[in-house]
Amino acid sequence: MILILKPGVKRQDLDRLVEELHQMNFRTHLSEGENTTIVGLIGDTSRLDVNEMRANALVADVKRVSEPFKLANRKFKGSDTVIEAGGCRIGGGHFAVIAGPCSVESAEQIELVAKSVKSSGANLLRGGAFKPRTSPYAFQGLEGEGIRLLEIAKRQTGLPIVTEIMDITDLPYFENVDIIQAGARNMQNFRLLKKLGQQDKPVLLKRGLSSTIEELLMSAEYIMSEGNQNVILCERGIRTFETSTRNTLDISAVPVLKNLTHLPVIVDPSHAAGSSHLVPALAKASVAAGADGLMIEVHNNPPKALSDGAQSLTLEEFESLMGSLKEYISLEGKEIG
Amino acid sequence: MILILKPGVKRQDLDRLVEELHQMNFRTHLSEGENTTIVGLIGDTSRLDVNEMRANALVADVKRVSEPFKLANRKFKGSDTVIEAGGCRIGGGHFAVIAGPCSVESAEQIELVAKSVKSSGANLLRGGAFKPRTSPYAFQGLEGEGIRLLEIAKRQTGLPIVTEIMDITDLPYFENVDIIQAGARNMQNFRLLKKLGQQDKPVLLKRGLSSTIEELLMSAEYIMSEGNQNVILCERGIRTFETSTRNTLDISAVPVLKNLTHLPVIVDPSHAAGSSHLVPALAKASVAAGADGLMIEVHNNPPKALSDGAQSLTLEEFESLMGSLKEYISLEGKEIG
Amino acid sequence: MILILKPGVKRQDLDRLVEELHQMNFRTHLSEGENTTIVGLIGDTSRLDVNEMRANALVADVKRVSEPFKLANRKFKGSDTVIEAGGCRIGGGHFAVIAGPCSVESAEQIELVAKSVKSSGANLLRGGAFKPRTSPYAFQGLEGEGIRLLEIAKRQTGLPIVTEIMDITDLPYFENVDIIQAGARNMQNFRLLKKLGQQDKPVLLKRGLSSTIEELLMSAEYIMSEGNQNVILCERGIRTFETSTRNTLDISAVPVLKNLTHLPVIVDPSHAAGSSHLVPALAKASVAAGADGLMIEVHNNPPKALSDGAQSLTLEEFESLMGSLKEYISLEGKEIG
Amino acid sequence: MILILKPGVKRQDLDRLVEELHQMNFRTHLSEGENTTIVGLIGDTSRLDVNEMRANALVADVKRVSEPFKLANRKFKGSDTVIEAGGCRIGGGHFAVIAGPCSVESAEQIELVAKSVKSSGANLLRGGAFKPRTSPYAFQGLEGEGIRLLEIAKRQTGLPIVTEIMDITDLPYFENVDIIQAGARNMQNFRLLKKLGQQDKPVLLKRGLSSTIEELLMSAEYIMSEGNQNVILCERGIRTFETSTRNTLDISAVPVLKNLTHLPVIVDPSHAAGSSHLVPALAKASVAAGADGLMIEVHNNPPKALSDGAQSLTLEEFESLMGSLKEYISLEGKEIG
Repeated sequence: MILILKPGVKRQDLDRLVEELHQMNFRTHLSEGENTTIVGLIGDTSRLDVNEMRANALVADVKRVSEPFKLANRKFKGSDTVIEAGGCRIGGGHFAVIAGPCSVESAEQIELVAKSVKSSGANLLRGGAFKPRTSPYAFQGLEGEGIRLLEIAKRQTGLPIVTEIMDITDLPYFENVDIIQAGARNMQNFRLLKKLGQQDKPVLLKRGLSSTIEELLMSAEYIMSEGNQNVILCERGIRTFETSTRNTLDISAVPVLKNLTHLPVIVDPSHAAGSSHLVPALAKASVAAGADGLMIEVHNNPPKALSDGAQSLTLEEFESLMGSLKEYISLEGKEIG
Repeated sequence: MILILKPGVKRQDLDRLVEELHQMNFRTHLSEGENTTIVGLIGDTSRLDVNEMRANALVADVKRVSEPFKLANRKFKGSDTVIEAGGCRIGGGHFAVIAGPCSVESAEQIELVAKSVKSSGANLLRGGAFKPRTSPYAFQGLEGEGIRLLEIAKRQTGLPIVTEIMDITDLPYFENVDIIQAGARNMQNFRLLKKLGQQDKPVLLKRGLSSTIEELLMSAEYIMSEGNQNVILCERGIRTFETSTRNTLDISAVPVLKNLTHLPVIVDPSHAAGSSHLVPALAKASVAAGADGLMIEVHNNPPKALSDGAQSLTLEEFESLMGSLKEYISLEGKEIG
Repeated sequence: MILILKPGVKRQDLDRLVEELHQMNFRTHLSEGENTTIVGLIGDTSRLDVNEMRANALVADVKRVSEPFKLANRKFKGSDTVIEAGGCRIGGGHFAVIAGPCSVESAEQIELVAKSVKSSGANLLRGGAFKPRTSPYAFQGLEGEGIRLLEIAKRQTGLPIVTEIMDITDLPYFENVDIIQAGARNMQNFRLLKKLGQQDKPVLLKRGLSSTIEELLMSAEYIMSEGNQNVILCERGIRTFETSTRNTLDISAVPVLKNLTHLPVIVDPSHAAGSSHLVPALAKASVAAGADGLMIEVHNNPPKALSDGAQSLTLEEFESLMGSLKEYISLEGKEIG
Repeated sequence: MILILKPGVKRQDLDRLVEELHQMNFRTHLSEGENTTIVGLIGDTSRLDVNEMRANALVADVKRVSEPFKLANRKFKGSDTVIEAGGCRIGGGHFAVIAGPCSVESAEQIELVAKSVKSSGANLLRGGAFKPRTSPYAFQGLEGEGIRLLEIAKRQTGLPIVTEIMDITDLPYFENVDIIQAGARNMQNFRLLKKLGQQDKPVLLKRGLSSTIEELLMSAEYIMSEGNQNVILCERGIRTFETSTRNTLDISAVPVLKNLTHLPVIVDPSHAAGSSHLVPALAKASVAAGADGLMIEVHNNPPKALSDGAQSLTLEEFESLMGSLKEYISLEGKEIG
C-alpha cells in the first residue's frame, strides 16, 4: 500500500506518521519527489481499509499495490481448483452445464425439464425453490417443497442439483442439495457467506449487479476464510445504462477472474440477457472467453413460467444450443463433467 | 400494463391471448395501429412481472403504466408520513439530524461524540455495532457490546439511537434501539425485510448502490406489506463510472421520491462522498433539494477511526456545519425534531 | 408511440389533445382503463421526440412502440448488408480482420506491422494518423503524413486501409483510404456524420463510451439519411463502474444489433480490454457471439508504442491468436474476406 | 507517477528500465518492498499516458500521483478565476443565472422569453440555434437565423447571450455571441476545443454524459493550452442505470471541481432532470453545493416547444423559482452578476 502525502508536510509530522505505521507493524519506505512524498507500507495490508488511511490529515491519496484477497488468489495457488459435486467436476478442464427452470413449479415440470436437459447434455440441474423477487406481491417460490421436488428429479436422472439459499435458517432443507447458490442480491450478505463457509458443500457465488470483480473475490474470501474452499464464481451481468438487455454481461470478467484466481468461473447468460433469443450467442461467447461452465434457464413452457419466462429456452432450443456448444467446448480443450 | 404485440399476429392467436388474460382476471383493451397492435391490461397488475409477460411468443414488448408499489405510493396516501422514534419526529416538516461515528469503538468514544453532536444540534445518534465490511479481515464491529454502549450514550444524552441490523437473529439486541437500519447491501435481503415488517420499530432503509428508485420503493413495500408502515428511505450514493467520489450522490432521488411516496426521505452524504471535505456541500444541497433529514458521520478522532475515517467530520467540523444547516432548514420551512 | 395520460383528465382537455394530434397528421386510438387513459399515435413518429410529448400538461409518460431508426432497420431490409472496401467484403458471412498499430509512427513500423499481420491472416490494415487524445500534451498523431505512410503500406501489401477522421476539413487526406472511421468520441458529432453521409466511402462507426445501442443506430441513420448506406458498426466497450478493464465490452450488443439492423457489426476488443492479455479471449468471444469482424491493435514493440501500448498484441501474439480465430470463424460458418 | 513492477523482476531488467526512464528526462526513486518493487517517476508526467507505461513488460500497474492538468489546476493558481462576458462576471462570488429556451424558435418567442427572464432576475440569455439532436429526422435548429434572433433579443434586453457551436466553420456567426457553448457531445471533440482556444470569447464547456471530472478538466486544458483561459465548466448530469431522471445530476462534481480548479463551475439542472418539476429542487441544491451559476431552460409555452419541452419551466415557474434562489445565493455569500 502506498500513501501519497499532501504537499508541504513538515518533517516532524512525517516522522510521527512513520512512527505510527511502525507501531501498526508495518515497515515503511519513503520516496520524496519534487512535489510529492510517498510512503510505501511493507507488511500484510489486507486488513487495512484504503478509506481508513485516507482519513489521516497528511495523506492525499492511498493506492493498493497488492490484492486484498489471499485464499482466492492465484499468486498463492497456481493450479486450477477442481470442485467435485455429486459426481461432477468443475474447473481445470471440466466444463459444467447447469440447466433447468428459474423456479421449480411442480413435480411434473421439474421431472420433464430434468430428463430433457440431461438427454441434451447438461450435467447438473438447477431450479429455484426460494426465490428473491423484487415485488412482495410476486410468486416467492415453493420453498422447502421445491427442494423436495428437486431431490426427486435428482433420483430420477442422477443429475446433481444446484439451488439458491436466501437465509441460513433454511440450511436444513439443503441436506441433499449438491451445490448451494448464494444469489447476486446476497453477494454481500456477509453473515450468510460466513455460515456457508462453515459447512462443506460447494457454494456457487453469483456476482452482485453492481459489484466489482475485486468485491466478488472478497466475498469468496469470506467463505474461504471460514474453511470452505469450494467456491464457484458466477458472472451474471452487471447494471449499466444500456436498456436493451436486462443486464450487461461482463464477458471480460471471465479472463480477468481466470488470471486473478484459481477458482472455477462460470457464466449465467440467461439473467444477463433477459431474453431467450440472446442466450445462444452469449453462451457460445462465454465458452470462447474461457468459462468453466454455464448456467442456463430452460423451461418446458416459457410463456407459462411463474418467473423469468422471457429468458428461458424451450427444451428444443436448449437441445439445439447444446449441439453447437459441444463444438466450442471441445475447441477450448475442455470436456463436460 | 401494455402489451405491444409482434407484427403480423394472427386473429386466432390474438383471441387466445385475450382469453388467457381474461382468465387471469384482467380486462383488456385492444388498440390496432398501422404496424402494431397493443393490448392494454386493466386490473391489478402489481403482482405481474414485466418479464413474465414478455415470455409470450406474441409479445414484442411490455410497458408498465402504473407503479408496482401500493402502500408506499403517494397516490393512495397524499399526506406526508410522520415517523415518531424516541420522542423525535421525522417527515412532514420535521427534519432529522442523525449524527455519530461509523462504528461504536468504546464507551468513551461514543459518549464523547454523542454529547458533542447533541450540543451542536443533532437530534438522533447513529453508531455501527454490526458492521458489513468488504473484507473478512477488517474490523467487524463490537456487535452486541456496541449496542450496549449506544444505550448508555442514549441514557446520558436523551438522543434516540439508530443502528444497523445485519441478520434477523440479532433482533433481541435491538430492544432499546429506536430506529433499525437496513443497510445498502441488504436492501434486497427480502427475508430480513419481511421480518422487519413483522415488528414495529421504524426502519431506516438505505438504497442499494445499484438499486433503482423503484426497487427502493419495492423494498419498502416488502416491509409495509407485512404490517410496519414506519419506513424512512435513505439516499446514500449510487455506483457510477466516476471515481473522484466513493459513490455518486443521486440528489435527484430526493425530489423524485418526494413525488412518488409519502414516506420521509433522508440523505447520507458521508457514504456518498467518501471524503469529509465534501460533506458540508452535499449536506446543504440535500436540505435544499427537499430532504427530510441527514445522516452524517462524526468522529472525535477521524484518523484513528476503526472504519470510514476519511469521510467522518470532526466534532468541530460538525458543529460548524450545523450552524449553516440550520439556516437552510429554516429556509425550507422545516424544523429539527 | 403511446401517451399515458395523467389521472383525472377532463373530457374537453382530452378532446383538445386529440385534435392537436390530428393536426400533426397522426391518427389516434384511445384506451380508457380504470386509472389510466392511453392515447396511441398512429403514423410516422420517427420525427417525434419522446421528451417533446412529455411536455404536455395532460401527459404522465410516453412510450415508443416502434424503433426511431428506419434505413438501418432490419424490419425494412431483411438481408444482411455486405460492404465492399478495397476488394474486401464485410457482412453476410464475410468476416473482416482489421489489424495494425494504434498509431502510425514511422514508415518502418507500419510496413513491418502490415506485412506481418497480412501473413498472419488479417485482410485489412488499421493505423491511426489523426489521434484523439484525452490530454493536449500527449502525442497527437502524424496526421497527413501518417496517412501517406498507410498508403505506402497498402501498396506494399495490398491490404485496404482503415483510419480515423477527426474533422471533416481533413477529408482530402482520405482519398486513398478504403474505410473512414468515425471514432467513439465523435459518434454524436452530427455534423461530421452528415458530411460522411455525403461521400461514398464506407464508414466504420464506433459506439460511444456511454451511448446506447439505439443511439448508435440513430448515428448510423445520420450517415445513411444523407445517402451513404455503407456503414459498419463497431462495439468497443462502454463505461461502467468496473475498473479492472479499461471499458466493459458489451458483448450482448453483437446479437442485439444483428437482430435490429442489417448492417455489419464488428468488435474492437483492444480498446474494450485495455490490456493485451485479455484480447484473445475477447476476440474469440466476439466471433462466437456472431460478430462480422474484429479490429485488433498489433504493434511490433508495444512497450515503445506512442499510444495504447498496453493493449497492443505483439506480432507473434497476433499470429498465434489468428490460428485459433480461424477455427472459430469457420465454426460460425463464415470466412475471412 | 508510480510504476508498480511485477514480482520477481531481475536486477538487470530493472536497471535497463531505470536507464530508459532517465533518457525520458525523469528522475527515479526505487522502493523495494517484500513482494513488490515500486519506481517513482520524478519530473513532468503530464505528457505521459498511464496506458503507455503499462505496456512495459516489467510493469504490473501504474498510478498517477499528480493531476495531469496544469493550467486549470488550483494548485498553480489559488484564486478563483472571474470571467467577464458582455458586462457580466462569473466566478469569485459572482453568480450567473443563464436562462432561456432550449431552441430559438421565432423572433416573438425569444423576445418574450428574454424580457421575462430578465425581469425575473436572470443576467444572461441562453437559446439554441445549432441543435445536436439524436435523430436526423428531428428539428435541427434555426442555425444562423437563430443567432440573429438572439442578437435582437440581446439589443432589446441588454442580456449577454450564450449559445452552442457544433462546428468550427460556423464561428463567423458567433461574432456577437458573448459566451460560446461547447456541448456535452462535443466535450472530447478536440479539434473544436483547440479552435475555441485560439479565439478569445469565453467558452462554456459542458461535461460529457460519461466523462469523468478529470476528463472534463483535460478538455478545459485543451482550450487553455491554446491561449484562452476563459473557460466555464458546466455539470449537466451523467449517464447511470437510474431511469427515473433523464440523467443523474452529479452534484458532488461541484465541490470536487471547486477544489481541483480555479475555473467557475455552473450547473444545468434542466438537462440533468429532464422534467421541469424537478428543476427547482436541483437548482436550489446546486447553489447550496457551491455552484457559481445555473443554466435553466425556460419557455413561454413548453408543450409547444420544438425541443426539450418536458424539462422547460414556464415563465411563471421561473419567476417563482428566482424568488427562492435569491435567498440561497445570498446565504452562500454570492450575488448575481
